[in-house]
Amino acid sequence: MTRVLLTGFEPFAGDSVNPSWAAARALAVDPPAGMSVTAARLSCVFDRAVGELRRAVEESAPEVVVCLGQATGRPDLTVERVAINLDDARIPDNAGGQPLDRPVVEGGPAAYFATLPVKACVAAVRESGVPASLSHTAGTFVCNHVFYALMHLLATELPTVRGGFVHVPALPEQVLAQPAPALPTATVAHGLRALLSAATVATDLRTPGGTLH
Amino acid sequence: MTRVLLTGFEPFAGDSVNPSWAAARALAVDPPAGMSVTAARLSCVFDRAVGELRRAVEESAPEVVVCLGQATGRPDLTVERVAINLDDARIPDNAGGQPLDRPVVEGGPAAYFATLPVKACVAAVRESGVPASLSHTAGTFVCNHVFYALMHLLATELPTVRGGFVHVPALPEQVLAQPAPALPTATVAHGLRALLSAATVATDLRTPGGTLH
Amino acid sequence: MTRVLLTGFEPFAGDSVNPSWAAARALAVDPPAGMSVTAARLSCVFDRAVGELRRAVEESAPEVVVCLGQATGRPDLTVERVAINLDDARIPDNAGGQPLDRPVVEGGPAAYFATLPVKACVAAVRESGVPASLSHTAGTFVCNHVFYALMHLLATELPTVRGGFVHVPALPEQVLAQPAPALPTATVAHGLRALLSAATVATDLRTPGGTLH
Amino acid sequence: MTRVLLTGFEPFAGDSVNPSWAAARALAVDPPAGMSVTAARLSCVFDRAVGELRRAVEESAPEVVVCLGQATGRPDLTVERVAINLDDARIPDNAGGQPLDRPVVEGGPAAYFATLPVKACVAAVRESGVPASLSHTAGTFVCNHVFYALMHLLATELPTVRGGFVHVPALPEQVLAQPAPALPTATVAHGLRALLSAATVATDLRTPGGTLH
Repeated sequence: MTRVLLTGFEPFAGDSVNPSWAAARALAVDPPAGMSVTAARLSCVFDRAVGELRRAVEESAPEVVVCLGQATGRPDLTVERVAINLDDARIPDNAGGQPLDRPVVEGGPAAYFATLPVKACVAAVRESGVPASLSHTAGTFVCNHVFYALMHLLATELPTVRGGFVHVPALPEQVLAQPAPALPTATVAHGLRALLSAATVATDLRTPGGTLH
Repeated sequence: MTRVLLTGFEPFAGDSVNPSWAAARALAVDPPAGMSVTAARLSCVFDRAVGELRRAVEESAPEVVVCLGQATGRPDLTVERVAINLDDARIPDNAGGQPLDRPVVEGGPAAYFATLPVKACVAAVRESGVPASLSHTAGTFVCNHVFYALMHLLATELPTVRGGFVHVPALPEQVLAQPAPALPTATVAHGLRALLSAATVATDLRTPGGTLH
Repeated sequence: MTRVLLTGFEPFAGDSVNPSWAAARALAVDPPAGMSVTAARLSCVFDRAVGELRRAVEESAPEVVVCLGQATGRPDLTVERVAINLDDARIPDNAGGQPLDRPVVEGGPAAYFATLPVKACVAAVRESGVPASLSHTAGTFVCNHVFYALMHLLATELPTVRGGFVHVPALPEQVLAQPAPALPTATVAHGLRALLSAATVATDLRTPGGTLH
Repeated sequence: MTRVLLTGFEPFAGDSVNPSWAAARALAVDPPAGMSVTAARLSCVFDRAVGELRRAVEESAPEVVVCLGQATGRPDLTVERVAINLDDARIPDNAGGQPLDRPVVEGGPAAYFATLPVKACVAAVRESGVPASLSHTAGTFVCNHVFYALMHLLATELPTVRGGFVHVPALPEQVLAQPAPALPTATVAHGLRALLSAATVATDLRTPGGTLH
């Protein structure tokens, strides 16, 4: 059994649900074959989320960590490739914090790449019938903050644990009156099951996955 | 029991599925309370679809007719408000036909408005947790062709039957590798059940539903 | 000399400029060869704009009338093909009026098609180096209201005058901080000069210009 | 006189123009007050562009270097904040090269941040009447390749020279028949003049400029 930690966020920006936490919970209840999945819910708060992540890692001793976040406007599961050492909050977080142009980790490297086989993950989600693509920016809000902190933790303390971040679309119920892409939790969870099954492959695919800009 | 006819289209443009037919079938199997739903599959062919529609109407003697079509790129269920008397095919239909600047019905009026209570329909879909909005163009391909022909048939021969057209997003499996909005059939069918339940209300809502352009 | 009437709107929705009026004025100052262009500014008010349009038509006795409007979010010049007999205001107009589900002309036909050679117009704009396309909805706000009223006036009183409507993108200065497509007045005016030169051709092009939905 | 080096790219992907080179040339001819601008055209070829950039830097001995690239689909000037150490070409470059998952600089850091005052630059462009925003991904094609190589060169050999990268929209003539945002060279050059004037300020602004994802 491969031990997986999936994190999702609490609702933010006035919403009452967050598709990332709904998906994490769904996979904990119904994990992929051969995997045990622990779901942890993180605060959408710069000064709390990383402590919560660290505790969840300590308690579940995972071999793979995938943090999930909500990306309203994106139509598909986006596997993030790079976390940057920058907090720059466009809106306040759930505790009113709004850091500007501050590093996630003082003195840390400018960026970390995910250590998941990101292209194999994208391919596996698509093969399961769910749209997916690579992304080269996780933004500069709490999602990127947690992603960077995760990769820093793994790089400095747990080098054998694989880690990454996946953004998921809004839920249909979050975009009722304003046209925006959405996927229900069952679809997202189905794609994430396929993603996790690919997360432990030894060698990533050699296929183009980049963007022109 | 209210008798409802739902039509969907066969796949087109190289696809192997069409979300409109998948949704129509789902509602025939599991209709809203108090309704019997007949599903009819139309060819994506200008010169066949209207004959098929007319036969389906004759066979099912519906009180409400809602034609469904696929709108790749739209993120929500869009209730069409107006059908125009114009065929102008950007691509060939499934039989290779590509009419340009031809009326749907020679000598017919320039347009028909749907006779569904379109705003009550949009509100009901949203209340069911599925995104929806009004649309003021059904394009100029086979969807608009069928919509116009339906409204002409009802106006000239069956004035007590209500009719309209709803575009539904692509299925997730149709947009695997290219980012585009999508909804699975279960979500679309859930929204359409709510829509049908509102389709028989006597008076439409008085709420803004327009667009600036 | 062909006499052309171009109308533009005053600013609305809190803006201090309207690209449609800026473009109309530019063409009055510097018209296409062989044309005299009168520019008239219309109120963005349902209950005033049509009276102003009628007076401008009476005063300038045009052979061609093209009304212009602003379409924030559209990236190119869009030649409208159809005006519908429906006012449904999403926001109040500049006098606070917000009609809902009201016909533009009581008892008028459901729609009018533009009598410009719309495909030749689109082709001419593109040939001049400016992006353009056909549109099948001018919305349900003051733009569509004026477009419908124009076509009704021409159909019922001035059948030899050609008429149509063109939406133009926002100006760069209107979208400084929020990413949205924009074109400066010089570019729009350049495209409109080409459009007007094509507006008097006898026969429209036979090319596909439709949309799938 | 502040010495500025501006680079633009040759056309690629079948186009006959590149707005980045058109803009660079325009600024060399008509630079901002107090600045001399050298324009250098780079090949859209992974294995040539960096050598060309290095030679241009050596020849012009600039105090500020801004590389420009084309971002079809983006509506505004986007000031790139971060360059990543990754080549992953979705399409072949102009010499047929298509590197996959290769570092720009073997053994280099995962990323570099631009050393321009990026928020002051965005603000200055907007104040000049041209839309602009920050971007947190320059893609993984030749643009990011050159941006990363520039920042590596400056960090390792020329630490007093400021550098950054700005993506500019397509030209109107590049998107004639497919709706996509565009700005003409005069508008882009006007915004870039304002940007360069801000590029030498000592301290960046403290305003939110981030993205949620």
